[in-house]
Amino acid sequence: MAPLDYPEAISVTEVCTRDGFQNHKTFIPTEVKIEILDALAALGFAKMEVTSFVSPKAIPQMVDAAEVMSHFQKKWGDRIAGFALVPNRKGAELAIRNGAEALVFVLSASEEHNKANTNRTIEESLSELQDICRDFGGLEISVGLGTSFECPFSGTVAPEKVTRVIDAAFEYGVDHITISDTTGSANPRGLERTLEIVRSRYESAPFALHLHDTHGMGLANALTAMNMGFTTFETATAGMGGCPFAPGASGNLATEDLVNMAGRMGIDTGIDLIELLRVSREIAHKLALPWKSHVASTRIGLDEGVYC
Amino acid sequence: MAPLDYPEAISVTEVCTRDGFQNHKTFIPTEVKIEILDALAALGFAKMEVTSFVSPKAIPQMVDAAEVMSHFQKKWGDRIAGFALVPNRKGAELAIRNGAEALVFVLSASEEHNKANTNRTIEESLSELQDICRDFGGLEISVGLGTSFECPFSGTVAPEKVTRVIDAAFEYGVDHITISDTTGSANPRGLERTLEIVRSRYESAPFALHLHDTHGMGLANALTAMNMGFTTFETATAGMGGCPFAPGASGNLATEDLVNMAGRMGIDTGIDLIELLRVSREIAHKLALPWKSHVASTRIGLDEGVYC
Repeated sequence: MAPLDYPEAISVTEVCTRDGFQNHKTFIPTEVKIEILDALAALGFAKMEVTSFVSPKAIPQMVDAAEVMSHFQKKWGDRIAGFALVPNRKGAELAIRNGAEALVFVLSASEEHNKANTNRTIEESLSELQDICRDFGGLEISVGLGTSFECPFSGTVAPEKVTRVIDAAFEYGVDHITISDTTGSANPRGLERTLEIVRSRYESAPFALHLHDTHGMGLANALTAMNMGFTTFETATAGMGGCPFAPGASGNLATEDLVNMAGRMGIDTGIDLIELLRVSREIAHKLALPWKSHVASTRIGLDEGVYC
Repeated sequence: MAPLDYPEAISVTEVCTRDGFQNHKTFIPTEVKIEILDALAALGFAKMEVTSFVSPKAIPQMVDAAEVMSHFQKKWGDRIAGFALVPNRKGAELAIRNGAEALVFVLSASEEHNKANTNRTIEESLSELQDICRDFGGLEISVGLGTSFECPFSGTVAPEKVTRVIDAAFEYGVDHITISDTTGSANPRGLERTLEIVRSRYESAPFALHLHDTHGMGLANALTAMNMGFTTFETATAGMGGCPFAPGASGNLATEDLVNMAGRMGIDTGIDLIELLRVSREIAHKLALPWKSHVASTRIGLDEGVYC
């Protein structure tokens, strides 16, 4: 029953144009992707996931990754670490050829989801990761560690499956690791248990947390992690997203919901909520989506100016 | 950074047919109200808010309160504490005449919202409460203390405004008090601060917490309160509700979202999630509403049988 303890500031990594877009049902024209990317980048995020270099057969939405990545690096590369998601060495090569200076290698803690998502065993994915770290060591390399808490195929994921991948990744020279609740079904107690094991093993290692809001537990999970001293969170403006290879996974935790909660708690994010909401509304409008984050529905300061 | 601490069990008070219905835009026929009430009562809640005895001019939806209350007492009165919400002595009389054995007297910690909601100053409301406690002392009397954290008209509410009303209410002989986040804009840190002051003042007093999910912080707030040892929560199945006199307030925290999170955390609620979701879906269907709770969107075990 000790009081909760929070950091003074957190850092938010925006993943809308990668994780947010990849599950969108119709193709988003490249110029629209770039407009949204620019609007988000102007908000001041230190890191963003820009796009992913994956098989266009598997995810046709990302067929224009090269163009999007090149644009980003030219326009924002000196100010923002723009990550390209890659599931294998081939993707990494493509990303680098198009200017990427930071990679997120994606694999899952659960064997079943790794297979569904990347068509590889975890061993095979780790081998690709090792090659990438060896061949592209000059770049900033992150691991996006999917299904770190719950797997849509095999249920609750044992923390040992998470630490096994983390052990290997740090051994290969990965710079940081994002522990991901791919399906948004981690609960605060399970999340705390796994994070506690991870943190006790790598006390000062750089971890981020990637959250979805499928069960509405996104902010409760963020709160739990903040109380444990985690300060980097991956979210998507407008709550877009979901994993095409994880049945039932819905949107990412909305960036504005996290920025709003943090702001009300006196925790600095460096992001202006009103500007962020304007961009969020614009995204929903451009993509003909309902404007579905929680804080969006309150329209704080935008239309009615009502504080509630 | 101490680990969060949770109770083994929590108790959920269902308020769908009162707080949920009062903001619904079209009149719900009395027989539909009763069907929903019966379906919810069969789920096993220990306490429910049945209806409210308020001016039909102010809230036309509650014009059939007498019929709904009488039905409930006859059918469920021996098993479930069915509360009638009343804003004044006249409402209390009407409720009792129709069989109510438990009352929730509603007033707000913020002067501005109390005026908007009950057309009385807090002093005037407290005077009504004193009369009710004096005249109907044999009944179970609760206070629903609105805007205990944030007010839609005056912003953050000082904890002293909350304790002022609690002091008076306990002095008059009130049995328990529900501390309410009427607008769903309490943040976990502000909520903790106020609850800490309340609890240090009345260590073993019976408090419940009434939560809305406007900003998506409902579960994060529930988590915070559970960590402080609070074990009674008011929620509405299907996330219905909102205060007609609090601009921007949207639905209550959905009962199924709390029952789902608690269940995944190993905290007993005594409510079967699948049965609850069936009732929730039925409510959405009967009232032609989108089925909007978080966990509803996952359709756990109902249609697809997907665990995620």
